[in-house]
Amino acid sequence: MPPQRATLLQVAQRAGVSRSTASFVLAGRHVDMRISEDARQRVLRAAQELDYRPNLMARSLRTKVTKTIALVSDTLASDPYAGRAIHGALAGAVAHGHLLFIGETEGESMIEEKLISDFLDRQVDAFVYASMFTRYVRVPKLLKGRPVVLLNCLTRAAKPAHHSIIPDEVGAGWSAAKAVIEAGHREGIHMVGNLAHHVFAGRERLAGIREGFGAAGIKLAGTIDCEWWPDSAYEAVSAALAGGPPPKVLICLNDRVALGAYQALREAGLSIPGDVSVLSFDDSDLAAWLRPQLTSISLPHYQLGWQAVETLLDAAGRTEPAVRRVEMPVRYRASLGKP
Amino acid sequence: MPPQRATLLQVAQRAGVSRSTASFVLAGRHVDMRISEDARQRVLRAAQELDYRPNLMARSLRTKVTKTIALVSDTLASDPYAGRAIHGALAGAVAHGHLLFIGETEGESMIEEKLISDFLDRQVDAFVYASMFTRYVRVPKLLKGRPVVLLNCLTRAAKPAHHSIIPDEVGAGWSAAKAVIEAGHREGIHMVGNLAHHVFAGRERLAGIREGFGAAGIKLAGTIDCEWWPDSAYEAVSAALAGGPPPKVLICLNDRVALGAYQALREAGLSIPGDVSVLSFDDSDLAAWLRPQLTSISLPHYQLGWQAVETLLDAAGRTEPAVRRVEMPVRYRASLGKP
Repeated sequence: MPPQRATLLQVAQRAGVSRSTASFVLAGRHVDMRISEDARQRVLRAAQELDYRPNLMARSLRTKVTKTIALVSDTLASDPYAGRAIHGALAGAVAHGHLLFIGETEGESMIEEKLISDFLDRQVDAFVYASMFTRYVRVPKLLKGRPVVLLNCLTRAAKPAHHSIIPDEVGAGWSAAKAVIEAGHREGIHMVGNLAHHVFAGRERLAGIREGFGAAGIKLAGTIDCEWWPDSAYEAVSAALAGGPPPKVLICLNDRVALGAYQALREAGLSIPGDVSVLSFDDSDLAAWLRPQLTSISLPHYQLGWQAVETLLDAAGRTEPAVRRVEMPVRYRASLGKP
Repeated sequence: MPPQRATLLQVAQRAGVSRSTASFVLAGRHVDMRISEDARQRVLRAAQELDYRPNLMARSLRTKVTKTIALVSDTLASDPYAGRAIHGALAGAVAHGHLLFIGETEGESMIEEKLISDFLDRQVDAFVYASMFTRYVRVPKLLKGRPVVLLNCLTRAAKPAHHSIIPDEVGAGWSAAKAVIEAGHREGIHMVGNLAHHVFAGRERLAGIREGFGAAGIKLAGTIDCEWWPDSAYEAVSAALAGGPPPKVLICLNDRVALGAYQALREAGLSIPGDVSVLSFDDSDLAAWLRPQLTSISLPHYQLGWQAVETLLDAAGRTEPAVRRVEMPVRYRASLGKP
């Protein structure tokens, strides 16, 4: 009997990092994932000491592929940023020597049924069921009893049948509050965005922001209601600036809203962050392109896709199904300053 | 014998539109593809008159799927906008009742070989071989003699073995020149971007711009050399503005460059398009978000993906392999004005 191989978890534990961190390092994705050089070295050392094969790709190259995953989404590929979840899922599949089918249903249940049934005919072993926006879903009947992980969606079931991988939006709201408080602000803090937004992300972000400030005894000075688009934000912030003293901080509910806010502040002759600090959510490419660069809380699409496949192939069936919330890290840039 | 079915080409000819336009309309993608209501009506009427089944999706729902396409790319899914080509390919596959595998090689030939061989084991019938940036490639040996269409790449072969679908970048350069000339400009026209750029798109855009102005007897006033990123463009345009009279027109080689140019013009107190007109390439989301909105020449990623699959399933093997250049339409917005 050959000696038992070291597992990824053993490597991670020896290196003192999470399983995901070890997995990213071993898949060579440490740069993308902004993993510290120190952590990377510890993972590589642990892998060597445990004789863990560090190159998953090389392993998959020697392993006959027998397994196939299908990623079934509503319209994931059509959104540029959410599409990165596909890339993460692909990387995860490759690292485990799996092939990936993708299919889109455009939200039509008839198409969904046909698509899943075709995938089953093709001997697909496991499914990632994905949504473009974080939302509640019903898992299609055809998938019942099969290995399935939900990506960017969850069910309302008290005892879920599948793992769900979603972004930690409530935590992101808390992080926003924390970043603003740590910069020294306690007054003149406004939120910008549609506060009656029924989208899951919006509700959770808002809840986290309110809880975060509430815990520090800070009251929000006001809210500037607008759609989640630059034009609407530009108009709403312009109107707010014309109607009263300038705010000290604008917490924009996404980067597109922040772009509109930037345009309004500039026209009003207010400097960022000298006069007004701006903080945002999503960390789309836009955040790094604005001047000054925008501090934004990252929607980790790539990690969501990767984690979904990792969970599907590693944990599903071996751990109790649960909702796993992936941390949304704050990308500190120049738009958040002192009062 | 059942009567012969009308073909898509017959519908398109009767409606007086291209095959792609007819195909988009029948797949219900007229909004995305900005097809006029008039053209849409003509296609639907022609389809009805010829008894062509207008709902491809419905047809594929009744047809047993027996075919599978694989999309093999270097890193297509990792770029938000190029990722739209995957969406177009998916829509094309679905419209023809095919399933789509996707795989990425990160440009590694060993991974590529393994991936293609795994797809072949899975009875994949046909391949789309794709590149994130338009470039010359060598088609992998394993794909020789099989149905393959190249997406966003081409070979140097005088007599190519496969169809290639690439954006018409030279035509886009001509369109840029034409748009500027039609707005009334003949002087003070500068290009902004890296003119020593070795990337295929850059070379072809430049060639088209120069040919277009040359044909009208117009000389470019100058070039502002910078990398294809906002910061570099901001610095280069700021320096150019400090060193001489302001230009009348800036032709930016992509939208990110235009963003940097906007920032420099604004700081110099110049209005767009009152003082300086700006025109750009790519038509990324950014173009519609800037103020004023940016006139930009669209990189049709979705159409490229769609066309690749259409060509693979429709034309490959029945027409002489050739390079098909997909038109890059000008999206007229507010940044281009009169002199």
